[in-house]
Amino acid sequence: MQEPNQNNKISVLIEPSLSEAKVLIEKAFTQRKTLIVAGNCKVDYVGRANSKLELGERILIIKADGSLLVHRPVGYEPVNWQPSGSVFHSQIKGDFLEVHAVRQKPRENVRVLFSKVLTVSALSLQDAGDFILNASEEDMHRAILLKPDLIENGFKPISYEKKVEPGFVDVYGTDNQGRLVVVEVKRKTASKEAVLQLSGYIEAIKVKADRPIRGILVAPTLGKDVQRMLSSIGLEFKALDPKKCAEVLKKTETSKLEKFF
Amino acid sequence: MQEPNQNNKISVLIEPSLSEAKVLIEKAFTQRKTLIVAGNCKVDYVGRANSKLELGERILIIKADGSLLVHRPVGYEPVNWQPSGSVFHSQIKGDFLEVHAVRQKPRENVRVLFSKVLTVSALSLQDAGDFILNASEEDMHRAILLKPDLIENGFKPISYEKKVEPGFVDVYGTDNQGRLVVVEVKRKTASKEAVLQLSGYIEAIKVKADRPIRGILVAPTLGKDVQRMLSSIGLEFKALDPKKCAEVLKKTETSKLEKFF
Repeated sequence: MQEPNQNNKISVLIEPSLSEAKVLIEKAFTQRKTLIVAGNCKVDYVGRANSKLELGERILIIKADGSLLVHRPVGYEPVNWQPSGSVFHSQIKGDFLEVHAVRQKPRENVRVLFSKVLTVSALSLQDAGDFILNASEEDMHRAILLKPDLIENGFKPISYEKKVEPGFVDVYGTDNQGRLVVVEVKRKTASKEAVLQLSGYIEAIKVKADRPIRGILVAPTLGKDVQRMLSSIGLEFKALDPKKCAEVLKKTETSKLEKFF
Repeated sequence: MQEPNQNNKISVLIEPSLSEAKVLIEKAFTQRKTLIVAGNCKVDYVGRANSKLELGERILIIKADGSLLVHRPVGYEPVNWQPSGSVFHSQIKGDFLEVHAVRQKPRENVRVLFSKVLTVSALSLQDAGDFILNASEEDMHRAILLKPDLIENGFKPISYEKKVEPGFVDVYGTDNQGRLVVVEVKRKTASKEAVLQLSGYIEAIKVKADRPIRGILVAPTLGKDVQRMLSSIGLEFKALDPKKCAEVLKKTETSKLEKFF
């Protein structure tokens, strides 16, 4: 072991023996610190399914809430992970240092067996910063195209930002009964102006359409009396949050790009 | 800065100045090492959507392939992440050390701005170990119940492991036209015996059923001549891999448990 560093906030061991590593790992568990262990390890998982990861050098992260991640040197996804709520133990087993996470409901066991530890860090991290995730209205359109059931089951987009005097229809499609659907999207509380806008598009399309048309106003919330106004002219409301759209975009486009499945 | 450690495989800085941290971070980029930086930072993301994370202590991981993760001290999910393919720069900007990741297609920018660095580790990790993810046949049944469109769009399970002489039907449901669907699941290449088994269940159910019945054999692959035998008696095949089911189980049950959305 070279150059240990120990203070209240940061404890780091570099190339410790397995038993030296064990002492700091146990300390991190009892003090609920964020633990980062880099080393040569294998991983066994038995739970909702089961997996085996053969020996190689990876990073094990165990957080204050008991969530666990094992990261290989490439790829943004962890190879093994557990949400919070695990209970942890460590022990020397022959030539290995075993870190064992057990979770109930569903019953899951992850065993990380280190043959060699490169570094162990136990950190007290303070983090109360807000996270704000946003999507523009155009982002919301794209999220709906990528995942049309954000509108409803069976919705099929035909086009978006389609020119229809007096302006542009946000998203235009059909429902599972073949009716046309005109979608107007607002990223904030929708006002009566939004209803009039949607209603204007529908009137313009009705003239040429050969089948029934539905209008759906999509927004996180509706302003005062807007639901009543919508209902009175036979239009619908679908609650959709920009944040949800941002999550869909982030997940769906990456999985498309990366052929994640 | 306390006790730097530098060797070819492991470089660690503890409480370095921002400019000291920058030197090791740049070195990790050029040498394509795995970089782990713990410190007080804020994060701006602009791309498919946009997000802001206010100041707090987190862990930044940048891997050899250019994938990026920012982890808060709690939660198994990263608060910011990018798949591989980013280009990285770092610079001192006033009182901050900025680590900037740029990705094309789609254009995305992540800026991690550290006001204080606790530790920097640059590691050369070797990992060629195989990862083997498995699901039992029962795991496959559960995956189908959780995500019925693994069978087909509109499939609705009614029950599973249902007793039907001469045995137990794996999964039993209806399709989007209201027909009964009997599903027989195999986790390896399905043989002619599997076809006979499925056919036996259908014959037994037909006697009591008041509507058409479909039979679907679900397996990763079919054995020799099995497709012809299936077709000749009007049964269907759906390719499904146990590994895919294991991924669905891991993702779906956790998201259900955690109310991820």
